[in-house]
Amino acid sequence: MLYLVRMDVNIPPDMPKEHADAIKAEEREYSQQLQHDGRWPHLWRVVGEYSNYSVFDVADNDELHTLLSGLPLFPYMDINVTPLAKHPSAVE
Amino acid sequence: MLYLVRMDVNIPPDMPKEHADAIKAEEREYSQQLQHDGRWPHLWRVVGEYSNYSVFDVADNDELHTLLSGLPLFPYMDINVTPLAKHPSAVE
Amino acid sequence: MLYLVRMDVNIPPDMPKEHADAIKAEEREYSQQLQHDGRWPHLWRVVGEYSNYSVFDVADNDELHTLLSGLPLFPYMDINVTPLAKHPSAVE
Amino acid sequence: MLYLVRMDVNIPPDMPKEHADAIKAEEREYSQQLQHDGRWPHLWRVVGEYSNYSVFDVADNDELHTLLSGLPLFPYMDINVTPLAKHPSAVE
Amino acid sequence: MLYLVRMDVNIPPDMPKEHADAIKAEEREYSQQLQHDGRWPHLWRVVGEYSNYSVFDVADNDELHTLLSGLPLFPYMDINVTPLAKHPSAVE
Amino acid sequence: MLYLVRMDVNIPPDMPKEHADAIKAEEREYSQQLQHDGRWPHLWRVVGEYSNYSVFDVADNDELHTLLSGLPLFPYMDINVTPLAKHPSAVE
Amino acid sequence: MLYLVRMDVNIPPDMPKEHADAIKAEEREYSQQLQHDGRWPHLWRVVGEYSNYSVFDVADNDELHTLLSGLPLFPYMDINVTPLAKHPSAVE
Amino acid sequence: MLYLVRMDVNIPPDMPKEHADAIKAEEREYSQQLQHDGRWPHLWRVVGEYSNYSVFDVADNDELHTLLSGLPLFPYMDINVTPLAKHPSAVE
Amino acid sequence: MLYLVRMDVNIPPDMPKEHADAIKAEEREYSQQLQHDGRWPHLWRVVGEYSNYSVFDVADNDELHTLLSGLPLFPYMDINVTPLAKHPSAVE
Amino acid sequence: MLYLVRMDVNIPPDMPKEHADAIKAEEREYSQQLQHDGRWPHLWRVVGEYSNYSVFDVADNDELHTLLSGLPLFPYMDINVTPLAKHPSAVE
Repeated sequence: MLYLVRMDVNIPPDMPKEHADAIKAEEREYSQQLQHDGRWPHLWRVVGEYSNYSVFDVADNDELHTLLSGLPLFPYMDINVTPLAKHPSAVE
Repeated sequence: MLYLVRMDVNIPPDMPKEHADAIKAEEREYSQQLQHDGRWPHLWRVVGEYSNYSVFDVADNDELHTLLSGLPLFPYMDINVTPLAKHPSAVE
Repeated sequence: MLYLVRMDVNIPPDMPKEHADAIKAEEREYSQQLQHDGRWPHLWRVVGEYSNYSVFDVADNDELHTLLSGLPLFPYMDINVTPLAKHPSAVE
Repeated sequence: MLYLVRMDVNIPPDMPKEHADAIKAEEREYSQQLQHDGRWPHLWRVVGEYSNYSVFDVADNDELHTLLSGLPLFPYMDINVTPLAKHPSAVE
Repeated sequence: MLYLVRMDVNIPPDMPKEHADAIKAEEREYSQQLQHDGRWPHLWRVVGEYSNYSVFDVADNDELHTLLSGLPLFPYMDINVTPLAKHPSAVE
Repeated sequence: MLYLVRMDVNIPPDMPKEHADAIKAEEREYSQQLQHDGRWPHLWRVVGEYSNYSVFDVADNDELHTLLSGLPLFPYMDINVTPLAKHPSAVE
Repeated sequence: MLYLVRMDVNIPPDMPKEHADAIKAEEREYSQQLQHDGRWPHLWRVVGEYSNYSVFDVADNDELHTLLSGLPLFPYMDINVTPLAKHPSAVE
Repeated sequence: MLYLVRMDVNIPPDMPKEHADAIKAEEREYSQQLQHDGRWPHLWRVVGEYSNYSVFDVADNDELHTLLSGLPLFPYMDINVTPLAKHPSAVE
Repeated sequence: MLYLVRMDVNIPPDMPKEHADAIKAEEREYSQQLQHDGRWPHLWRVVGEYSNYSVFDVADNDELHTLLSGLPLFPYMDINVTPLAKHPSAVE
Repeated sequence: MLYLVRMDVNIPPDMPKEHADAIKAEEREYSQQLQHDGRWPHLWRVVGEYSNYSVFDVADNDELHTLLSGLPLFPYMDINVTPLAKHPSAVE
């Protein structure tokens, strides 16, 4: 089941660089694991912003919330979720 | 080059049903042709709305505008375009 | 799986009363059938508005879209869907 | 009498973890007491956000404000209240 | 129990004047009856707009919705309701 | 002359409690003095928010600004003023 | 007493031109009478829009509402009123 | 003196096609004349929308308003004007 | 050439009072100099807010930006500029 | 390929002046290099704001994101990107 998710990252400007780098490294690893197991099939950067649009493919609402709230950057992000359905004209 | 596009359809309530059906049929054919040739790789329905989120893969801004403004439903849609870039953590 | 849905009804002021009444009667029957089979467990009126907040309990995003887009008043409503997850402090 | 309430939690990023944990534990206990006595019949997590939608069943506006302003997380939340009425098509 | 209510009137410009005048006369009578019986204690015009701010004093949410949805101008108004509670510094 | 005023209080979370308590006590005294002399005839709490809706009865715009900008909490509030006029259907 | 007023004109596109011209002529005469008697001291066009910013100098809120609601274009305008006070640094 | 101008075109869907085509042809001629005489140095289409961003180079606010309000499509457009100044880092 | 300018002042709550007072004194002097030389003909306080609406009369966009960005409070203000043109019904 | 980009700069008020000056100097150099090589053909100041509107001319979305995210002020800016297409009436 698919969801479009927009994430806007707002790291406090006074967070020490090493701390921020450590969180970003964890975020990257966490994200790539989910991409590899198929639950995060698309991850795109929004041009000009520290934001992404992603597509998640999960079993249900609870699984999606568990994945998103477990993101290392979760405390520093605004996240907006749009549930997607099959489009009648889609050929995929 | 990828773009995320949201389309919200607003057909006037007094448009005759046959006219609306004809436009929707053209829209479907137009859309499926672009899906088949690879320029409209994703088309999803927004749950609960007469709207879609789509991903387009085109050569440049001009090609995207040509495709979108040629949509049979173009006069009846609000369209919003977000240019996408490769995300540094994306594995795809 | 639960979703919170807000529906705002906007019937065109020039729709003949009999037509509007017929659609509303269909809407009522459609709604009560879904309430009885358990897929529309809550339906509340927003005080002062021709709007409702509802909770739907369905299998997935596609089923929810099918139910909502089949509402007799669907062409005359703005609908907004919020996917819900279990809250860690909920006792229900 | 029912109200739909949305709560968005914004804990300052520099609050010490023990302090935040203590407030959250109080919040959980406070919330579960109200759930058990029937005044907070529904509590749902908004997917992807540190937010909830809740339904409260209280005697009047004053009681609702007393309950909400007594929430241990009240100083760190944006709260929005929508009064609900019986829907003419509701079967519950 | 008090509620602050804002009403914005939007009468379609093509409604015949006699029809509009008849609705406004009914609205006036309806409003004055509720003012006299104490359930609509305040009614103020918003300067420069075809809008009012009102205070209602009713038993509960359902009574308020019944009163508001019975307004002759209800189909032509946007209504927004804010539930009010006693303020701890109020002397009234 | 009447004005509807909405005040939203935002006390910085790191203000020492004694300081905040002192300002709130001054605010209460200031407010009650104006309520007693008739210039602040209504003061209501917005349910679920650290906000109020108030009605002021003053001679002119300048007097209202003097009163509002003299509020001890003025530096920590967002204030929005709506000038009110007599409503043609009001019986008060 | 001064107020800043913004007026946005929205004449329905299907109003016959003679009708629109007649209303505009009345509006002009009405406006110039108030400018001459000193109650409408400033009237400026917003560049690129069928809108104006105006300053009114009247005795009170009721007089302002009477003037604005009497504008021949009133049924076709969105009007927004901001009460003004003397600025402590103003030399005028 | 430069201004950035955004224009969003909203032609009523029930305008006869010949009428719309005639206005668009006038608009094109009007626009190209201003482009040739140097007062409309840039005209770009917003991708996916019936809108443009333009740069105007005129003597003053009045000249800009005269040009914009003379556009054949002016009655059917929302126009937003942003005055521009020389940027201290600009090399042009 | 006239512009309407709205300025909203947001001084950080932790700025030392002497520092804030010094900036405000400079602002006052700066403002009154421009009022005296005719380039800042109107300066009004927005009732209830730490904001002003002003009218500037300058030669061009660049001069306005130079004046505004030179305001001692500039780093602590949100400023919004609306270019004004002569209104066809204005008698001034 | 052209894009309109709006950048709003928000430097934290507690950043030491030397640090801010150093970043701004880097920003200036970075910007002028891109202006000279033709990829940043227009850079305008928004009158009254610490903001600019810019036009970029780059090969694709990825190049634009690389340029923008490399701006020394990138962590302190809100950036909004609008892709532009050739306008059918443009003569340039």
